[in-house]
Amino acid sequence: MVFLTRRLHFNAAHRVYNPTWSDEQNEKVFGMCANKNWHGHNYELEITVYGRPNTDTGFVMDLNDLKRIVREAVIYKLDHKNLNLDVEFMKGIIPTTENLVIAMWKELHPKLLPVQLYSLKLYETPRNFVEYRGDK
Amino acid sequence: MVFLTRRLHFNAAHRVYNPTWSDEQNEKVFGMCANKNWHGHNYELEITVYGRPNTDTGFVMDLNDLKRIVREAVIYKLDHKNLNLDVEFMKGIIPTTENLVIAMWKELHPKLLPVQLYSLKLYETPRNFVEYRGDK
Amino acid sequence: MVFLTRRLHFNAAHRVYNPTWSDEQNEKVFGMCANKNWHGHNYELEITVYGRPNTDTGFVMDLNDLKRIVREAVIYKLDHKNLNLDVEFMKGIIPTTENLVIAMWKELHPKLLPVQLYSLKLYETPRNFVEYRGDK
Amino acid sequence: MVFLTRRLHFNAAHRVYNPTWSDEQNEKVFGMCANKNWHGHNYELEITVYGRPNTDTGFVMDLNDLKRIVREAVIYKLDHKNLNLDVEFMKGIIPTTENLVIAMWKELHPKLLPVQLYSLKLYETPRNFVEYRGDK
Amino acid sequence: MVFLTRRLHFNAAHRVYNPTWSDEQNEKVFGMCANKNWHGHNYELEITVYGRPNTDTGFVMDLNDLKRIVREAVIYKLDHKNLNLDVEFMKGIIPTTENLVIAMWKELHPKLLPVQLYSLKLYETPRNFVEYRGDK
Amino acid sequence: MVFLTRRLHFNAAHRVYNPTWSDEQNEKVFGMCANKNWHGHNYELEITVYGRPNTDTGFVMDLNDLKRIVREAVIYKLDHKNLNLDVEFMKGIIPTTENLVIAMWKELHPKLLPVQLYSLKLYETPRNFVEYRGDK
Repeated sequence: MVFLTRRLHFNAAHRVYNPTWSDEQNEKVFGMCANKNWHGHNYELEITVYGRPNTDTGFVMDLNDLKRIVREAVIYKLDHKNLNLDVEFMKGIIPTTENLVIAMWKELHPKLLPVQLYSLKLYETPRNFVEYRGDK
Repeated sequence: MVFLTRRLHFNAAHRVYNPTWSDEQNEKVFGMCANKNWHGHNYELEITVYGRPNTDTGFVMDLNDLKRIVREAVIYKLDHKNLNLDVEFMKGIIPTTENLVIAMWKELHPKLLPVQLYSLKLYETPRNFVEYRGDK
Repeated sequence: MVFLTRRLHFNAAHRVYNPTWSDEQNEKVFGMCANKNWHGHNYELEITVYGRPNTDTGFVMDLNDLKRIVREAVIYKLDHKNLNLDVEFMKGIIPTTENLVIAMWKELHPKLLPVQLYSLKLYETPRNFVEYRGDK
Repeated sequence: MVFLTRRLHFNAAHRVYNPTWSDEQNEKVFGMCANKNWHGHNYELEITVYGRPNTDTGFVMDLNDLKRIVREAVIYKLDHKNLNLDVEFMKGIIPTTENLVIAMWKELHPKLLPVQLYSLKLYETPRNFVEYRGDK
Repeated sequence: MVFLTRRLHFNAAHRVYNPTWSDEQNEKVFGMCANKNWHGHNYELEITVYGRPNTDTGFVMDLNDLKRIVREAVIYKLDHKNLNLDVEFMKGIIPTTENLVIAMWKELHPKLLPVQLYSLKLYETPRNFVEYRGDK
Repeated sequence: MVFLTRRLHFNAAHRVYNPTWSDEQNEKVFGMCANKNWHGHNYELEITVYGRPNTDTGFVMDLNDLKRIVREAVIYKLDHKNLNLDVEFMKGIIPTTENLVIAMWKELHPKLLPVQLYSLKLYETPRNFVEYRGDK
């Protein structure tokens, strides 16, 4: 098996807060991340698929196909958007990096088949990131 | 002269639009950067001062002093904020990277004296950035 | 499971040598890393914990808690220190990156419970690094 | 077990094409990567070995030995070369990053024994990379 | 004045050699960079223009316009190409990074007017780069 | 004129303190940087020379010559050394980044002639750096 990774980026605004809590509780738990006027990030996504290289092409998957599918499935829906207000698949979900990466996996996984998704690594900043490998 | 630089970061939301224009005109000129629900960035700031190293300390300026002044003058006012709504010194200014760096210079320059500010370099993304060296 | 990582740094001096060996033997095996007047590095640490995001917060762990615990358990004891002379938990241990990462794991692991530590990745330089995932 | 990684680089030219296909078919599948006059990359290789640190040295492996073996086994044969024309161990193999990393593993694995190779991570660009962990 | 920079990349093959010299002389002066079967690089270009931000837009220049002009003027002619064989504006020029950056300036400068080009910074590798600011 | 830059690195230990001051005064001004058992850094040096590309080679200067001269003049004297104890040209000088870059310029400038040194940029960490362009 070879693991093939492509790095992509998007910029978005968000606010980390729990709508069932008071403002005080949100402020206490999430601090300035709960700022009511939003803040934002340059997100970096590393998407990893795996398989045996095709004998005719030497590719696990054509990187242009990978880019196109990932852009259509998630990037175009997130880039220059508000994660709390603008993104259908994040409705009702607190937009932490953890919850975002799980939601992105659910969108991407079926669209990549039969190619197998191995991992999504999502950087909120160059020093904070999460990785999700599906329900394993 | 030695040029001394410190890199600092902040995250913010913004929307690039001209309030004297129609939505159509904003959309045409600024595209998705005008998204009415905001988007955001991890900004990186490189602040450069210059001078001769002090004979007793070998410092152009104590980096802890530099950090403290820059944080109080600009970083704490920008970090996890909305550049259009939350920042006093950006009121009435379209928050492009160009306009932001000039506004930051105006805040910082007097607070660093007698140390001379040489340059502010502001990265909106790792691949887009501006530099301002004052009114020269 | 989601894997959550935070990157932190510290600067330290060290000397790689085996005190039970002659100077010649140390010089032969460790070369300039055994320099008797020390040398040093900017270390970068990536600490990864894992778990299911909490339903109320969307967090595997609050990153501010993670930072605070890691700083108190290891970073403040290593930063701007001499790994051979100043660090209680490195006493009697040759301070290679391999030995350092294992010693850091022993300090950190109990202090993070019930959160599970998954991996410590320690960069001695941007091109040399080790990873430790515990006694597995 | 500790995982020890060293990053190394090489520059090479290549052309991604299948010699059993027509020019049209190559152009259709590989696009500009099939350019008959070649193109090239700055490749970055991360080689990871693993083991228990030696009691006398604190090393999983001496990094100078690791560098020397990797350079002799693969880097010197690839650096400033044409992957299609100049590299004995790539003869008859389409030089995609996937195929290259497998071929490098076959060269390196026996020369590192008894040290165990864990992974080869090969960056074709900073945003496209593959990882291979052997026939597992 | 504000200096606005955009970073772009391209991959290319080349061979550094002087066609008026013997193979021996080329080998002696250029070493493995003269390899007759070519080698290649991931080039990174930083293009800097300058001016006063427009009052209506806050832009020195629209970054999308900048990207489009630079791509059409130079990037599409260089990307996945052979600098010695495929590039009209490099005909008869030894493709060192120095000569390449001057040739790119000549192509770009007139197409950006009335916007003023300030600098082209061209990375052949992350550790080797040149900068050109025109005939000043 | 073309500006040609090469990036090189070295690791060193140091202690920032003024030997004419009391321990208390050193501690007050330099904080943990004055730790009596030293600390250390991975320094990165960017050396920039300038000139017109030679007509026969297309080089401002052969990068291999540049590397060799810089290594012999400064890198080998600093790498894996103690800046306070081991480096002849730093004797009697407080080893701040500012003082170090000036001392390195004095060593390098005459050895590069007739090639003109333009700038030395010295990174103590990826976020703190100084630049020196000589006595101008």
